[in-house]
Amino acid sequence: MTFSLVAYLEERRATVDAALDRVLPPESAPPTNIHRSMRYSVLAPGKRLRPILVIAGAEAVGGRADDVLDTACALELIHAYSLIHDDLPAMDDDDYRRGRLTTHKKFGDALGVLVGDALLAFAFEELSRLTAEGVPAPRVVEAVRRLAHAAGPMQLVGGQALDVAAEGRKPSARLVRDIHERKTGALFGAAIALGAIAGDADARTVDALEQAGRMAGLAFQIQDDLLNASARSLRTLGKRPGTDAARGKATYPAAVGESRARRDAVEMLRSVRSALVRRCTRPALLLALVEALAKRER
Amino acid sequence: MTFSLVAYLEERRATVDAALDRVLPPESAPPTNIHRSMRYSVLAPGKRLRPILVIAGAEAVGGRADDVLDTACALELIHAYSLIHDDLPAMDDDDYRRGRLTTHKKFGDALGVLVGDALLAFAFEELSRLTAEGVPAPRVVEAVRRLAHAAGPMQLVGGQALDVAAEGRKPSARLVRDIHERKTGALFGAAIALGAIAGDADARTVDALEQAGRMAGLAFQIQDDLLNASARSLRTLGKRPGTDAARGKATYPAAVGESRARRDAVEMLRSVRSALVRRCTRPALLLALVEALAKRER
Repeated sequence: MTFSLVAYLEERRATVDAALDRVLPPESAPPTNIHRSMRYSVLAPGKRLRPILVIAGAEAVGGRADDVLDTACALELIHAYSLIHDDLPAMDDDDYRRGRLTTHKKFGDALGVLVGDALLAFAFEELSRLTAEGVPAPRVVEAVRRLAHAAGPMQLVGGQALDVAAEGRKPSARLVRDIHERKTGALFGAAIALGAIAGDADARTVDALEQAGRMAGLAFQIQDDLLNASARSLRTLGKRPGTDAARGKATYPAAVGESRARRDAVEMLRSVRSALVRRCTRPALLLALVEALAKRER
Repeated sequence: MTFSLVAYLEERRATVDAALDRVLPPESAPPTNIHRSMRYSVLAPGKRLRPILVIAGAEAVGGRADDVLDTACALELIHAYSLIHDDLPAMDDDDYRRGRLTTHKKFGDALGVLVGDALLAFAFEELSRLTAEGVPAPRVVEAVRRLAHAAGPMQLVGGQALDVAAEGRKPSARLVRDIHERKTGALFGAAIALGAIAGDADARTVDALEQAGRMAGLAFQIQDDLLNASARSLRTLGKRPGTDAARGKATYPAAVGESRARRDAVEMLRSVRSALVRRCTRPALLLALVEALAKRER
């Protein structure tokens, strides 16, 4: 990672954190238990990759960061909801996330379910406010459609459902890839696509960027699994190393071997690069970001 | 209930059931486990009150039922999601719903969480398709905004969170009313409002109908609690009688006494009636429907 990209990520993360703090209802607003736990969960320290991808997606087609902050927040709200529900006892049953108690551990299982639900609905309320900020209504509807699809039964939730069904078995490489495309790829794709929509890109560009984002998400997930397999301490990842493997979770490196997984990720990045260069007026930053994510060391 | 209203409800229910069957992804579409359990949960026999209120809301302002079926389905999807999550072990821990095994009992706790999530996201995808059916985009955005708000932390989820916090205590009448306005009133209000939006009503009418719907939902809930308290068999309600009281659930009749609860419901209906007559070009059917719901015997 070059120094400028690190600085860019830091700056964007701070911008996103401030925007999240602004859009989330205050703790004092009743019902206070739901609002307090929403803020605890969403404002926990995080990389904010998906909202930053929204901003980078907008900038890549000539849009401005300030115009897409609400869209960026909507993506992080969806991501936060999915983590909270993944951590529930009925799912992965995790006690810690990002070095803090998970939402259901902190507030109880019922609130764990409810906070996730609240964030999912709230993300769409947030998106619906874009018209008030000057985004034409047809584009807002398009954003709602793509985000709902990415978060719904065919994609994010569907990937989780496939994952649940595969647990304890030895899934094929194809199935693992399918799961990751839905669980991680779909939201990466939606992030870049929604940024491009808010940045006023034409429909073909939005489609191409969504596809590139999916592929980037897949490469990111492979890297995540490679890191998870080799991580040496709780400190490095903020969760116990090797927990996915211990639980029999389907990972791509486990299915095809680490070296093949690395090669495939490089190939994916090549196709992402080619799509971004072909479609974007200013691809450089988004490209640097995607490559850094898929090659990161932690 | 007059004969004609019974016939109307039967006909509308069949129309809504057919529309739900059409909009839900087929069981054969992967991931099949999520799609199969979505269909099991949503297509279970039900009264379809909220979608019928969407249709009646549209008709009351001069719209047509055929133009609002997707909106009607979106409301039922949200309602179905909320029932599935309410039934989870982390929440009410119910084994039966509408005389059948609850979703998590049938498909496991993980799917119980995921199917609810899937339906919530899918409802917004469904709404976003309205533009393809000729509803102007600004109205679709308005529908998304109102539905997301009604389903989110301030309303449906918030009511549930207040309910969780109140369990085991003796809540005030004011708190119980607040819980019911959020848990039941908000979605009734959104149903009628979204019908009116699709039926091309002006903003003041939509606001007034939303408010009337909330009040109607409250009256409906009071009647539901009165029936629950006195129901004599599993057969009548499709769940065990008196379970709410046994669990220490906050009900309005328990908080203020049955006769005061009845009087308050009558008063609420009076204000609903007055709003509908003032605001709608064709209030008769919606009015008959709302009164029948709030006075039903089962």
